[in-house]
Amino acid sequence: MQSLKVLGLGVGAAALLGLGVILGHFAIPKGANQPAPQDLDLEVLETVMRQLDASRIREDLRELSREPHLSSSPRDEALVQLLLQRWRDPVSGLDAAEAPQYEVLLSFPSQEQPNLVEVVGPTGDILHTCRQREENLTGEQGGPDVVPPYAAYGPPGTPQGLLVYANQGTEEDFKELQTQGIKLEGTIALTRYGGAGRGAKAVNAAKHGVAGVLVYTDPADINDGLSLPNETFPNSWHLPPSGVERGSYYEYFGDPLTPYLPAKPSSFRLDLTNVSGFPPIPTQPIGFQDAKDLLCNLNGTSALATWQGALGCDYKLGPGFRADGDFSADSQVKVSVYNRLELRNSSNVLGIIRGAVEPDRYVLYGNHRDSWVHGAVDPSSGTAVLLEISRVLGTLLKKGTWRPRRSIVLASWGAEEFGLIGSTEFTEEFFSKLQERTVAYINVDISVFANATLRVQGTPPVQSVVFSATKEIRSPGTGDLSIYDNWIQYFNRSSPVYGIVPSLGSLGAGSDYAPFIHFLGISSMDIAYTYDRSKTSARIYPTYHTAFDTFDYVDKFLDPGFGSHQAVARTAGSVLLRLSDSFFLPLNVSDYSETLRSFLQAAQQDLGALLEQHGISLGPLVTAVEKFESAAEALDQHISALQKGSPDTLQVRMLNDQLMLLERSFLNPRAFPEERYYSHVLWAPHTGSTATFPGLANACSTAKDTDPGSEAWAEVQRQLSIVVVALEGAAATLRPVADL
Amino acid sequence: MQSLKVLGLGVGAAALLGLGVILGHFAIPKGANQPAPQDLDLEVLETVMRQLDASRIREDLRELSREPHLSSSPRDEALVQLLLQRWRDPVSGLDAAEAPQYEVLLSFPSQEQPNLVEVVGPTGDILHTCRQREENLTGEQGGPDVVPPYAAYGPPGTPQGLLVYANQGTEEDFKELQTQGIKLEGTIALTRYGGAGRGAKAVNAAKHGVAGVLVYTDPADINDGLSLPNETFPNSWHLPPSGVERGSYYEYFGDPLTPYLPAKPSSFRLDLTNVSGFPPIPTQPIGFQDAKDLLCNLNGTSALATWQGALGCDYKLGPGFRADGDFSADSQVKVSVYNRLELRNSSNVLGIIRGAVEPDRYVLYGNHRDSWVHGAVDPSSGTAVLLEISRVLGTLLKKGTWRPRRSIVLASWGAEEFGLIGSTEFTEEFFSKLQERTVAYINVDISVFANATLRVQGTPPVQSVVFSATKEIRSPGTGDLSIYDNWIQYFNRSSPVYGIVPSLGSLGAGSDYAPFIHFLGISSMDIAYTYDRSKTSARIYPTYHTAFDTFDYVDKFLDPGFGSHQAVARTAGSVLLRLSDSFFLPLNVSDYSETLRSFLQAAQQDLGALLEQHGISLGPLVTAVEKFESAAEALDQHISALQKGSPDTLQVRMLNDQLMLLERSFLNPRAFPEERYYSHVLWAPHTGSTATFPGLANACSTAKDTDPGSEAWAEVQRQLSIVVVALEGAAATLRPVADL
Repeated sequence: MQSLKVLGLGVGAAALLGLGVILGHFAIPKGANQPAPQDLDLEVLETVMRQLDASRIREDLRELSREPHLSSSPRDEALVQLLLQRWRDPVSGLDAAEAPQYEVLLSFPSQEQPNLVEVVGPTGDILHTCRQREENLTGEQGGPDVVPPYAAYGPPGTPQGLLVYANQGTEEDFKELQTQGIKLEGTIALTRYGGAGRGAKAVNAAKHGVAGVLVYTDPADINDGLSLPNETFPNSWHLPPSGVERGSYYEYFGDPLTPYLPAKPSSFRLDLTNVSGFPPIPTQPIGFQDAKDLLCNLNGTSALATWQGALGCDYKLGPGFRADGDFSADSQVKVSVYNRLELRNSSNVLGIIRGAVEPDRYVLYGNHRDSWVHGAVDPSSGTAVLLEISRVLGTLLKKGTWRPRRSIVLASWGAEEFGLIGSTEFTEEFFSKLQERTVAYINVDISVFANATLRVQGTPPVQSVVFSATKEIRSPGTGDLSIYDNWIQYFNRSSPVYGIVPSLGSLGAGSDYAPFIHFLGISSMDIAYTYDRSKTSARIYPTYHTAFDTFDYVDKFLDPGFGSHQAVARTAGSVLLRLSDSFFLPLNVSDYSETLRSFLQAAQQDLGALLEQHGISLGPLVTAVEKFESAAEALDQHISALQKGSPDTLQVRMLNDQLMLLERSFLNPRAFPEERYYSHVLWAPHTGSTATFPGLANACSTAKDTDPGSEAWAEVQRQLSIVVVALEGAAATLRPVADL
Repeated sequence: MQSLKVLGLGVGAAALLGLGVILGHFAIPKGANQPAPQDLDLEVLETVMRQLDASRIREDLRELSREPHLSSSPRDEALVQLLLQRWRDPVSGLDAAEAPQYEVLLSFPSQEQPNLVEVVGPTGDILHTCRQREENLTGEQGGPDVVPPYAAYGPPGTPQGLLVYANQGTEEDFKELQTQGIKLEGTIALTRYGGAGRGAKAVNAAKHGVAGVLVYTDPADINDGLSLPNETFPNSWHLPPSGVERGSYYEYFGDPLTPYLPAKPSSFRLDLTNVSGFPPIPTQPIGFQDAKDLLCNLNGTSALATWQGALGCDYKLGPGFRADGDFSADSQVKVSVYNRLELRNSSNVLGIIRGAVEPDRYVLYGNHRDSWVHGAVDPSSGTAVLLEISRVLGTLLKKGTWRPRRSIVLASWGAEEFGLIGSTEFTEEFFSKLQERTVAYINVDISVFANATLRVQGTPPVQSVVFSATKEIRSPGTGDLSIYDNWIQYFNRSSPVYGIVPSLGSLGAGSDYAPFIHFLGISSMDIAYTYDRSKTSARIYPTYHTAFDTFDYVDKFLDPGFGSHQAVARTAGSVLLRLSDSFFLPLNVSDYSETLRSFLQAAQQDLGALLEQHGISLGPLVTAVEKFESAAEALDQHISALQKGSPDTLQVRMLNDQLMLLERSFLNPRAFPEERYYSHVLWAPHTGSTATFPGLANACSTAKDTDPGSEAWAEVQRQLSIVVVALEGAAATLRPVADL
């Protein structure tokens, strides 16, 4: 029995050891060698949300906007140093920061010969001279660093001619003037901002023989009609009568001399004679105070009702001034422009927090740094948010309490105001690396246009992460409403999938996201707080690109208390952390199905009949959309199954690669050879107003008045094939990776 | 004591359990949940090498080449079914196989009106008619499925004129004729294969007013001078006098009607009037028997010594025949071509073995299936190797003894002979997916040109894996020599890094690798056995593209015993397995450093002085090469360190992504807009013979005779920038992934 007992004891010991082995293998979480997949840490997220501080944003904004910091100016470079110092701070900085430079072509007014707009009487006497600077209302408009109003890249020249009023300077506007029998050859056209891009006004004008262009901001378009000094800044947020919107009149983006190449000192540069996209004729912006003097004295027939504005007179078309006005009837307007092109060094500032698990996956977050004058709103409201996010993340990083799963790259772009130059050169220099590795690009330029609601532009894959983030953040000044619940009251749409949801806008080329989405095909978004459209019809915040866009303007009128700035910081910060830290990449690619279906329906509705008349079937497009939809649906099921199981890091990496790279499959660098940098077949610019496939819509618009069999109709078919192939290719990237 | 004992027993049990837990956690290799990284299994590799069977390759070749299988013919489609059946075989097949079709534009001779080449006397009588078919020497040349010799895509027409001899039909050859005072307008030019591409002969001829082109193969170029029936097939491997090389005379590749778009039925197709790249004038290939009748009767001065051939007479230039020859002096040659363009369905066959660990990484291996006639060598020698590799791998797969780490995709391309059409359409259809996921493309077209030595063409990253594979395989018929050791005797170079090594050729556009390397930027290679160049100067194996390329030709002359076929199967199979199964991807990207350095040195030597004269510095290129070299060296050290440690799968995946995607960073779709599909800035075609940066070399060649300040010199600077940016971008992808 004894021996049996011992045996029994031996068996028991073996069994216990065996049980332990099994327990050890299955029950202990994988430790040092195989850590549990690093996922978004909700406590870290909560800490970040809590620490993003409105008063620090305010203080940063004060410093950033203390002086004018025009691109490549000494103050712009001083801010480069400020950013480097912050991002290299041992207590709250990032892992590394650099400030690479590009040598880019900028355009400035001459310091010796100021640009001038004058009314010249028949004997050559000067009857009126428009202001050369804005009025010094707050003591900040008079300094030597305040660049006088000008149209960047507008050519020098001194045209003189009879004045005409050309409304917004669109192609239609000039045709209307022609229809009215007005001879445009040799005239000066007074136009107002809006309707057409800045450069487009001069391009359209030149086609009709116009010799020079003036541009002003009508109080009807920016001030809800108000124009008196006591109604405007510094007494309200409205634009003062002397305020002038500066801006780039270049039609493309990126350094004009180095398209598709980074503007390194040794890079090939186009000869100036081969540069396209500059305004063809001298152009100068003026304030509405001066515009009123010109416009309210015009001769001729009354302009259309839709062309009238809020200057308090009947807008006439010209040409020339009326005899009973302030100027003699045969007076002309002389526009003297002395702008100069200069090669300048412009810096980007780049900072990185290296990813702990997938350092080769980048979440990019950027804003430009350069302003026209003080640029408190544009761009410093965004830069202040960027600095605050970097401070909070940097502090956690330096304390050792957090490191993101993926790498986070923060960027302060240079020379955006001249045409998104810093960001574009960056995408040209690191094309391959960025295209292979970038998860998403977040842009926060002007962070607060106004304090009513969030506004997000982005491609469909970013919708869900923005929704997730904004549902968890309190909206400023609205009690207990989340940003999401507040947002949905201002911008919403009925989604066939989700019901009523906030509506995201689509991405044009208004800020530095443009090269990322259009050239690299990286899922991108632009985040800001903005207007209650029931309260204002202003095109944009009234002091945009003027010398009145100052700290006090923000502090007193735009966002007192900086709650909206904080809301944007929290939104962008949450989206950033979710993208950098989530084990499963929070890009919902199946949200593209809804977009494609709506583009298809719009194409069927708007173009279907025309196409059918020309024997072109949308059938292949229908099939392609269906293929995308079913691939996306199947992928969603795959994701759900993975999330319920315990997938290893490689399985999730493979899935995440599909999600990250979907946007790339919509790129076709040969789709729109005329549209520099635009390769994304879904978001390229298009002429019509319908949200549909841009290449197809544009080609139809060109072809519709041509004969069957024309090259234009061939182009319609080519564009149809291009989008079909892109959608089929996109569907193929979503299908199981080892399907044939 | 009892209680103590129990306690003791309890303590012991707990300790045992605890020990077991610890053992279980640390000692048991990670099992089902976390398998040890799956790596190349040398036993599997050895099994595959052993099982690749020469006699099965021989039997497959017999079946594949039993009947002519011109693209899209019934026999071509029958072979599609044969491949599908093999790849779907339950015992030796793959995971899945499909045969997608494209609708492509092919060119065939008319069946009703045969193409004719005649000598027409002054009164219109026919003095000589060239053969319309090859002589039926083995009973295989007479069948209805033997397509008569023709120049595919040559336009129909019946030009008639005096005959001239234009050597190889290069631009220089026609200039030489001009210099000799020979009027080319309206003539028929007799040219020989070699020197210029097929289509280029007609293009060059047409520029000089030539009305029609004949092309023949000179025995000096293909038969080491032999030409008599008893010296040629079926009595030797040499080309019989009636043999004619067929071929595509299209200058680009891919379906001519759908550039950059997959040729789906619904795809946009160019109008024929907008198609470029077809020969501009009627063209017809003939045998050297007929060529002799024409050439040896020519009038005029003797051709240059370098223009003479082995037809046994003095080659004269013409124009027209000599009075004392077989034809009257004013006889002309009439070329009647009735080729027709037809839209045809052409199939690719695709098979997949799904990867066990990284199914989203593809190793592609392909060859075309279509032939001109029986195509025993071209392409069936490659297809037989493909089938044997798929049988061996499929058998291991179906037995459950092996599954690759990554997915293996096998492809049998259609319509290669007409211009790499099947493979090109495939790359157009799945552009995004392939570019994101493909590790490498292996091409084995003609597997055996001759049985002397291995010959590999490929980009630098594939060199090391080919070396590793070939060092382990016995060379056929050379005792104990490895394939590597045999190879190095025939093709070698002195590498600054490795000393004397076999030299890889670079990839042109001779087979289906072209769209993969040039359009997609995927590291590619082409593998074959080939000649002892000390024993033959034949341009290519003599029966290339003729009706004499039959099974017996291979079995008796090219590779009796099929040892070379087996050697190629083992080489390609080993390379394939190493690429699909190795944990660390065996692509040695740092081998690009040597190439870049040699390209740079060649540029400095050949172009440096010229560039300096024009104020263009190669300095930025030097810097870029240095950056690449140091990034590659640092990456090598990183790899060594990783390999010494125990890296997790994600770390190695990230590294492998860098290795896989390096080749992509050399792509620039805007670099060579005129060169369809060529986007790789290092391997695009170039005019000179120096191995250097092609864009730069071409631009210099165009610019060198133009004035400083010309557009051509601007293009030189642009090309220099393009290559600098590509190299800098490539270096950036090799640097640590979280470096700024």
